[in-house]
Amino acid sequence: MKNTATLLITCPDQKGLVAAIADFLYRHDANILHADQHQDAENNLFLMRVEWDLEGSTLSLDGFAEEFAPIASRFDMNWQLKSTQKRPRVAIMVSQYDHCLADLLHRHQSGELNCEIPLIISNHRHTEKLAEFYGIPFHYIEVNKDNKPEAEAQQFALFDRHEIDLIVLARYMQILSPDFVKRYPQRIINIHHSFLPAFIGARPYHRAFERGVKLIGATSHYVTEVLDEGPIIEQDITRISHREQVDDLIQKGRDLERVVLSRAVRWHIENRILVYANKTVVFD
Amino acid sequence: MKNTATLLITCPDQKGLVAAIADFLYRHDANILHADQHQDAENNLFLMRVEWDLEGSTLSLDGFAEEFAPIASRFDMNWQLKSTQKRPRVAIMVSQYDHCLADLLHRHQSGELNCEIPLIISNHRHTEKLAEFYGIPFHYIEVNKDNKPEAEAQQFALFDRHEIDLIVLARYMQILSPDFVKRYPQRIINIHHSFLPAFIGARPYHRAFERGVKLIGATSHYVTEVLDEGPIIEQDITRISHREQVDDLIQKGRDLERVVLSRAVRWHIENRILVYANKTVVFD
Amino acid sequence: MKNTATLLITCPDQKGLVAAIADFLYRHDANILHADQHQDAENNLFLMRVEWDLEGSTLSLDGFAEEFAPIASRFDMNWQLKSTQKRPRVAIMVSQYDHCLADLLHRHQSGELNCEIPLIISNHRHTEKLAEFYGIPFHYIEVNKDNKPEAEAQQFALFDRHEIDLIVLARYMQILSPDFVKRYPQRIINIHHSFLPAFIGARPYHRAFERGVKLIGATSHYVTEVLDEGPIIEQDITRISHREQVDDLIQKGRDLERVVLSRAVRWHIENRILVYANKTVVFD
Amino acid sequence: MKNTATLLITCPDQKGLVAAIADFLYRHDANILHADQHQDAENNLFLMRVEWDLEGSTLSLDGFAEEFAPIASRFDMNWQLKSTQKRPRVAIMVSQYDHCLADLLHRHQSGELNCEIPLIISNHRHTEKLAEFYGIPFHYIEVNKDNKPEAEAQQFALFDRHEIDLIVLARYMQILSPDFVKRYPQRIINIHHSFLPAFIGARPYHRAFERGVKLIGATSHYVTEVLDEGPIIEQDITRISHREQVDDLIQKGRDLERVVLSRAVRWHIENRILVYANKTVVFD
Repeated sequence: MKNTATLLITCPDQKGLVAAIADFLYRHDANILHADQHQDAENNLFLMRVEWDLEGSTLSLDGFAEEFAPIASRFDMNWQLKSTQKRPRVAIMVSQYDHCLADLLHRHQSGELNCEIPLIISNHRHTEKLAEFYGIPFHYIEVNKDNKPEAEAQQFALFDRHEIDLIVLARYMQILSPDFVKRYPQRIINIHHSFLPAFIGARPYHRAFERGVKLIGATSHYVTEVLDEGPIIEQDITRISHREQVDDLIQKGRDLERVVLSRAVRWHIENRILVYANKTVVFD
Repeated sequence: MKNTATLLITCPDQKGLVAAIADFLYRHDANILHADQHQDAENNLFLMRVEWDLEGSTLSLDGFAEEFAPIASRFDMNWQLKSTQKRPRVAIMVSQYDHCLADLLHRHQSGELNCEIPLIISNHRHTEKLAEFYGIPFHYIEVNKDNKPEAEAQQFALFDRHEIDLIVLARYMQILSPDFVKRYPQRIINIHHSFLPAFIGARPYHRAFERGVKLIGATSHYVTEVLDEGPIIEQDITRISHREQVDDLIQKGRDLERVVLSRAVRWHIENRILVYANKTVVFD
Repeated sequence: MKNTATLLITCPDQKGLVAAIADFLYRHDANILHADQHQDAENNLFLMRVEWDLEGSTLSLDGFAEEFAPIASRFDMNWQLKSTQKRPRVAIMVSQYDHCLADLLHRHQSGELNCEIPLIISNHRHTEKLAEFYGIPFHYIEVNKDNKPEAEAQQFALFDRHEIDLIVLARYMQILSPDFVKRYPQRIINIHHSFLPAFIGARPYHRAFERGVKLIGATSHYVTEVLDEGPIIEQDITRISHREQVDDLIQKGRDLERVVLSRAVRWHIENRILVYANKTVVFD
Repeated sequence: MKNTATLLITCPDQKGLVAAIADFLYRHDANILHADQHQDAENNLFLMRVEWDLEGSTLSLDGFAEEFAPIASRFDMNWQLKSTQKRPRVAIMVSQYDHCLADLLHRHQSGELNCEIPLIISNHRHTEKLAEFYGIPFHYIEVNKDNKPEAEAQQFALFDRHEIDLIVLARYMQILSPDFVKRYPQRIINIHHSFLPAFIGARPYHRAFERGVKLIGATSHYVTEVLDEGPIIEQDITRISHREQVDDLIQKGRDLERVVLSRAVRWHIENRILVYANKTVVFD
């Protein structure tokens, strides 16, 4: 079992940044396991991810903020510290299509996703048994035209009670209110069944079929207030032919959706993603 | 050297179609080399491509229409007959970026494209030497705000004189007039540097970069009156990362454009493409 | 629910074949839904798949053999007739890794695989609960150095009793005896975790890592007497980087294995595969 | 025009490495443009690539070795320093197939490959005109059973006279002698037309066809004494179907070979590649 800390930094680019960070870690006997950085020249931005072994280091998680404060302040840094000691807590929301949910639960069970999943919320009862099989508490919350605010209030209460860090929309077919989205910035991941920005909105496979494209895709992204316009985390495509009808596209697309959503969730959990300018940097 | 005929058929779907065609060919001692068909249930449409050896068959190219007329009439067929004896005549139009042109000319020289290329037309002198190296006559026709009708008239005259069957826009950066497009239905192939319908119009790589997509693409399509909305022939994509700037996208995209355009040209030349409902069927 | 018949034919290539088959179907009022054919010039072989609607046709499944006999005999055909009325019966064998099993069961439940799965056989108890969740009888049969013949005898008895048509090795880590393989020609599908013929045999991910390849793959194939040498049905690959260790390869590979195995199983079930010369033709 | 220096480092992994290097560069006012590192835990190895702007830095290329010596010595580093001021000098060797050569020359001309190409060597006259068109001196050196040592002596003389840094085998169909290979360690790049380690040796497309694989590939690698066993730099694949004969594989493969070889050459020229344990680390 890994026992590491990961530091994510965004700040204006300037000389001496890497030297300062590396020197800080060295002075605290931290053995760097991975370090990756990115400069965006256009925006004069520096982004970094550095992961070190907590064993053998004199840096404690609790004391980090105080010790790092002088450097953070000197370089005007935004930073987050995460540790494998505290597994992120993930809520999954789903409607009727259960392929992404089944996939995420199997990956979680097999150890691929290093997180807690304290709850599943659905506006259908369809996936209740699947949740039960994997031992995850299932919450049915009806959503209709008239009760959206109440339904979301129930959802917020559950998220609060379970101290949820990340919300995964695993083919959850309800549009979230602006209030919902605002509460969880860069903490809601959605899967959209097209290669965005193509086919924004409803029924993308039907529209792909009508347009006669030769590739279909899927896109995982953070949810923002504008539908399907949030920062893209991952995309992939598969080839189709004229022999395939809409139903075949939907079936083929499921394999894309599973993989593209699960990658995004894993990268988020592993603290590999930084967002700026409505884009993501994914450190690999 | 192949000596074959290819028949492309579109008609309403009904029983007995394949039997009638196969029987017709059998009665004329035609050895079928490839046959492929497609039914579109929604549109009740039957599409077929059949290729046979002209050696040993009693079917002559000249006499085909008369002999096939009863079947064509009975099933209400649209049909085209092509033969490897008559290589299609292709004009290439290009502006400054020469990577697609260089690629097509090299493929042509190496025997990959079974066509004549009687001329290259450009609104720049940049590719003149390349054309000369491959022995293709080069025509410089200036295009500016004021002379478009005259420029197109010159182009039409060249196409007529050289009996052009197909016009390939190999990164030709001028918008064709509606009159131009109407003259050559399903006979103009363009390469667009995005996975359509994403990033229709100008500067797709710049917009892909701004949107933060994880894949860039290219699309070859027949040109219709509405910009970038014609039937898609082929698409492909390549993965990009946050490290890549717009210039890197442009460079990577060139490899896509070359391959995606050349496939479309080859399939057209080999009579593999049928168009209906603003889509293509590509028989492989 | 589809009600169709599919005819698979292999025979020496000769003129009149398509005409004879199409005419036969036409005379029996069969509405052809899909037809695809392939000629192998080198081996002078003709292969065909044709699927028609049983509704409205005067061809009955029982009477087909007698009525088709003259044509089959005239052209020296090997043929098989399958119908959606009789769903193939599939046994799944699995060891400890359950990702392929979980995937197949979920696809089956969601209607993607049109077959019966009367039983799962494993040499471990690990997947028993998963089988139970999906309502499939689970049979634990221990296999060790000393009891292989007895274990296989038990397996054969189960296959016989349940009239199994296809055996899927979903990461079943025991080598089958020659006798086992001989009993089920072209009826055992295996998933191998490399792009064959690279890394035949044990521990392919470890060897891929050591060799420093930039792509890893998976291959589904029919099992023959020579290990990993049977006809390949499907292959796919994914890109890896130097950052990925063996464990990452294993994890990434699971996504390949799932997809590549499930495609092979689906194509077999849908009667899309013909085998000749230790290769497959997969009609799409 | 970039004016940067790139430092490539390999050494035993230990704490303080990054701090020492970053501090060194900071003290010399070097603005880091890119930095990437990799740790191989199994081999306890640290690998790094760091690129900085020479403008504004007090580090001169000439003085670097002396100034960096204390750090290099303290951490037992292997290091190389490269600069965009000195473009690497590349010799291309080719036989009859000219598609890789045409591709490399076009990329070079369009500015994609930041190197000098002082000469092309071939054992055929076929590509002489192509070389001439791109203005590269062409040297015909016959190779036969009896004259290999003499032929290679001529080649060495040319490499020496032109101070060649990298030799690219762009489908050069002669096996190099052990002496040749030993002279240019990690300085000869070859393109092999299969996804190695599958189909090592001659006629890989023919063997791929016979084996019935569903994917064909290409591999670029550094040449070592054992044929097709050198460190892999890049690989890619494309899908094939049963309809494609050997000639189709060869044609499709050309597109792979072009792209896979050109990537390897570009990465080498950009000093992105480090080799250890017969593998490559490619910094992106």
